[in-house]
Amino acid sequence: MLDIIFNHRSIRKYKSTPVDECILKNILESGVRASNTGNMQVYSMIVTLDAAIKEKLWEAHFKQEMVKQAPVVITFCADFNRFSKWCRQRKAEPVYDNFLSFYTATIDSLLVAQNVALAAEANNLGICYLGTTTYMAKQIIDILKLPVNVIPVTTLVIGYPDETPCLTDRLPLNGVVHYETYKDYSKSDIDNIYQEKENLPLTKELLGKNDKETLAQIFTEKRYPKKDNVDFSQSFLKVIEEQGFMNNK
Amino acid sequence: MLDIIFNHRSIRKYKSTPVDECILKNILESGVRASNTGNMQVYSMIVTLDAAIKEKLWEAHFKQEMVKQAPVVITFCADFNRFSKWCRQRKAEPVYDNFLSFYTATIDSLLVAQNVALAAEANNLGICYLGTTTYMAKQIIDILKLPVNVIPVTTLVIGYPDETPCLTDRLPLNGVVHYETYKDYSKSDIDNIYQEKENLPLTKELLGKNDKETLAQIFTEKRYPKKDNVDFSQSFLKVIEEQGFMNNK
Repeated sequence: MLDIIFNHRSIRKYKSTPVDECILKNILESGVRASNTGNMQVYSMIVTLDAAIKEKLWEAHFKQEMVKQAPVVITFCADFNRFSKWCRQRKAEPVYDNFLSFYTATIDSLLVAQNVALAAEANNLGICYLGTTTYMAKQIIDILKLPVNVIPVTTLVIGYPDETPCLTDRLPLNGVVHYETYKDYSKSDIDNIYQEKENLPLTKELLGKNDKETLAQIFTEKRYPKKDNVDFSQSFLKVIEEQGFMNNK
Repeated sequence: MLDIIFNHRSIRKYKSTPVDECILKNILESGVRASNTGNMQVYSMIVTLDAAIKEKLWEAHFKQEMVKQAPVVITFCADFNRFSKWCRQRKAEPVYDNFLSFYTATIDSLLVAQNVALAAEANNLGICYLGTTTYMAKQIIDILKLPVNVIPVTTLVIGYPDETPCLTDRLPLNGVVHYETYKDYSKSDIDNIYQEKENLPLTKELLGKNDKETLAQIFTEKRYPKKDNVDFSQSFLKVIEEQGFMNNK
């Protein structure tokens, strides 16, 4: 278990080798064993293997090559549709059309996703999460035909690795862990925490390529700029409303 | 790895045995290895061991005994405070005061949490997630002194198990997995998916205890009723705004 966790790297190049049905089933079952809220299991996994549908997903996910290349794409969705239908068939009025319920289903979906990711890696497969899922939620809803009360939260591409990347750097543990209560960061704390990352050869390379003075500027101006964050905030909040999760009264 | 995933059960009774410092460090480092958005690591883990602070958290978490009993309580937070401070110190204007950024940090936090949960179990510890974290986010922010741009997402209690519960039931895999696109559920699909759960001895016991006709009614009327969901939706949305994540223009 721990070796799988400590050897994780995201894989962005895949072989065309398909994933055996039994292995896929084992991975999906691993997802279902994750903790979930009140054992309601308010999530769904959409497993897309078909090339034509994967091509549509590839378009939605900013045309990242790995979406077409990896044999398996799993979209993890917050899903109160199934549970609500069950309630209605059992003389119970579902009361899950609100933000808290969506957020609860988000939590469930992500614990499932991480189990699936680790189980895939335990089966010698590679994985990569697609952050584009929330940016393009509306398009993904259309492609995957998600009904009201279902929202895509994250996506994993899964397949046999065709690259062996190095482990990526992380901030020192004391940069992200607090004991007892939160200790806010002083100016020198920030300098210390980010020092190693800022001195990586990769960072120097990025600075040159992007013609920026600091690594932080690459994030705020290039990778995650204000306009994108604002646009995606608006579109995602609209999706939450349209999918029936904003009745908070 | 897979044996850990398939043997997971939530533990609600703990021995007083403390968790060794090296084991705790190993668990926290496991968390940090999880995939995260753009390697920004926009999360924090607050490790609470002190009995007095744990007692305050116990109050916030609906006085669930395990919060006092388990030696370790870890609160996983969406955290754009550290990253934004770094940006400001590096001539970059942070642009992460919006809903998308909060949701991104939520995703990161939960993948970390699930790694921590599994790593704890791999070290023979037991864990339980506390769904009360979002319900009582405001109180937890006060207790843990979380600054603006930091929101608690979930909590794990961790310690040596003092009980050996059975595996909990799950819906059949075809109840939560869809192939290619979402196949909406027919009336008989719902009946089939929930049949096993509805016939469990535990379900019959719950129906008697709660004096309800259907299991669904126990969820909608007792466990997760409308008033709670609406109240917690409002208070959590207010927290998101107060913590500086609702500037979406």
